[in-house]
Amino acid sequence: MNSNLPDDTKARELAAAIVNGDRRALAKAITLVESHRPQDEAAAAALIGCALPHAGRAVRIGLSGAPGVGKSTFIEALGTWLTSKGKRVAVLAVDPTSRRSGGSILGDKTRMVKLTQEPNAFIRPSPAGATLGGVARRTRETMVLVEAAGFDVVLVETVGVGQSETAVADMVDMFIVLVSPGGGDELQGIKRGIMELADLVVVTKADGDLTQAAVRAGAEYRGALHLMRSKFEGWSADVRMVSSTEGKGIAEVWAEVEKFQTCLSKTGAWERSRRSQRVAWLWAELREGLLGLLAADPRIAKDLPELEASVDRGETAPPAAAKAILARWLGKS
Amino acid sequence: MNSNLPDDTKARELAAAIVNGDRRALAKAITLVESHRPQDEAAAAALIGCALPHAGRAVRIGLSGAPGVGKSTFIEALGTWLTSKGKRVAVLAVDPTSRRSGGSILGDKTRMVKLTQEPNAFIRPSPAGATLGGVARRTRETMVLVEAAGFDVVLVETVGVGQSETAVADMVDMFIVLVSPGGGDELQGIKRGIMELADLVVVTKADGDLTQAAVRAGAEYRGALHLMRSKFEGWSADVRMVSSTEGKGIAEVWAEVEKFQTCLSKTGAWERSRRSQRVAWLWAELREGLLGLLAADPRIAKDLPELEASVDRGETAPPAAAKAILARWLGKS
Repeated sequence: MNSNLPDDTKARELAAAIVNGDRRALAKAITLVESHRPQDEAAAAALIGCALPHAGRAVRIGLSGAPGVGKSTFIEALGTWLTSKGKRVAVLAVDPTSRRSGGSILGDKTRMVKLTQEPNAFIRPSPAGATLGGVARRTRETMVLVEAAGFDVVLVETVGVGQSETAVADMVDMFIVLVSPGGGDELQGIKRGIMELADLVVVTKADGDLTQAAVRAGAEYRGALHLMRSKFEGWSADVRMVSSTEGKGIAEVWAEVEKFQTCLSKTGAWERSRRSQRVAWLWAELREGLLGLLAADPRIAKDLPELEASVDRGETAPPAAAKAILARWLGKS
Repeated sequence: MNSNLPDDTKARELAAAIVNGDRRALAKAITLVESHRPQDEAAAAALIGCALPHAGRAVRIGLSGAPGVGKSTFIEALGTWLTSKGKRVAVLAVDPTSRRSGGSILGDKTRMVKLTQEPNAFIRPSPAGATLGGVARRTRETMVLVEAAGFDVVLVETVGVGQSETAVADMVDMFIVLVSPGGGDELQGIKRGIMELADLVVVTKADGDLTQAAVRAGAEYRGALHLMRSKFEGWSADVRMVSSTEGKGIAEVWAEVEKFQTCLSKTGAWERSRRSQRVAWLWAELREGLLGLLAADPRIAKDLPELEASVDRGETAPPAAAKAILARWLGKS
């Protein structure tokens, strides 16, 4: 590709290659949007602009669960089942602890060997990023690219660090929470705030010695979900049990996904959810951008930690501190 | 009070009167911080600055529950029980739907007649405000004032509109969720996101025909709480049943509050929670302030809705839209 061409032309060419199914162009494009170099920003933005009209047709599913619950095993089982049905599946991840070298614990191809060998599957580890906001934006942009490439299902995995689940829930159509039968690796219980995001709960490892425990755990989660108001009219989040190793329950999980999509499409909630995903992205970018501008200002960069510490000690009233920071910033810019 | 004195002197005098127990000074001070007039801002900020060193000694408790669950009845029962034990109790409310005239449905003195007659109780309806952020800030400032006035317990009621619960949870030490026995007014179930905030669940109306239903509901909520990871080390959120009309269970609820305070003080979590309340307030003010500056800019005021609509329709990529808005704003200011 001629590097002397303006960004727009290169972007159009790269986007066209992606839409045509060029897997190397897709990887190259994702590397570009994941870049942290300022000189890549304009090209990445132009690329997303060209790809956006081709995006939107995939089902986007968030997958969350504590370490040890069996996410990779489940993703491999679900992914291979879906490709066996002729679907094209992309697996992404949001992991703010991901580092450029050393990689992320998510999207670990060594744990999903069978799926990496599927021609109709595409697995990409989490982008690296200094903040969750940065990682989430790059993942959203990658999602635009894989959708433009024609993938039918996008799975976005999250490991539960900080506010990762909320960030992922804002970018997907359906949020699935994986839990283990209990008495196993995951003694801690479901992280607070995750239950409320769940459109479906999947109990993993429902086989062998853990079968009874899985059934009991399923009943408990069903009871808890029942106590909560529905997120969507006509949809009651339910529980399904799976054994990824035995391949049991996977079809039933996908049946729930299709039921969910049908139910929400009927009431218009699907399209509303898509619109609110887009608008949520806009406001996330605005908030990130504004706070970033503030924090990047050299004079504020010194005052802010001092004022925050003073507030922390109870010496300065928070509204007064905020006013002082904003006034200093406005006075400067 | 001499209105020609500078704000600082007036603030010091008013703060001193409040600390001395002058109830009229307290009411006047709260009216000042609730004001929306720009000319009152400096005086209110000075007042909070003078009051802040005298604040911090009360126990702050958030109370949430769906309409019809019996919040007012419970607050009256708890409030009168506390004053009978020699405690001074302030009752505040966060209700973003509150309007200046017409008042709020919360903090309704007509529903807590007995408590309004208690000399050691102080009830204030929710401040009015255009945004939840504005209402929350005024409530936090009012809390500083009632604490400076020597109140031992501050109850902050919220009705569950929008993100009110999260705003209240950020400003209190302990968050109590009230639920009804079920099959009554509150058929909808607990609003999503509230369960995760609860440090204690109280089942109301546990008397007469509803006694059995209350016990069953209690068991269900206990089961649900058990599935979730603890917010604080050493504290498992539990369930208590009360009958406000029969005065049963109130002492047990307060015993849980004291157990909670002891437990968290032991691990240092109480002080950490106080510090994070202060810092959360600072960042809430910064985010509100920044977005407010953006939205108030006349040229942005036209572009922002247009770009948001374009994003909503899927025509403009959100990061590109955010970049355009911020660039336009920076170019202008």
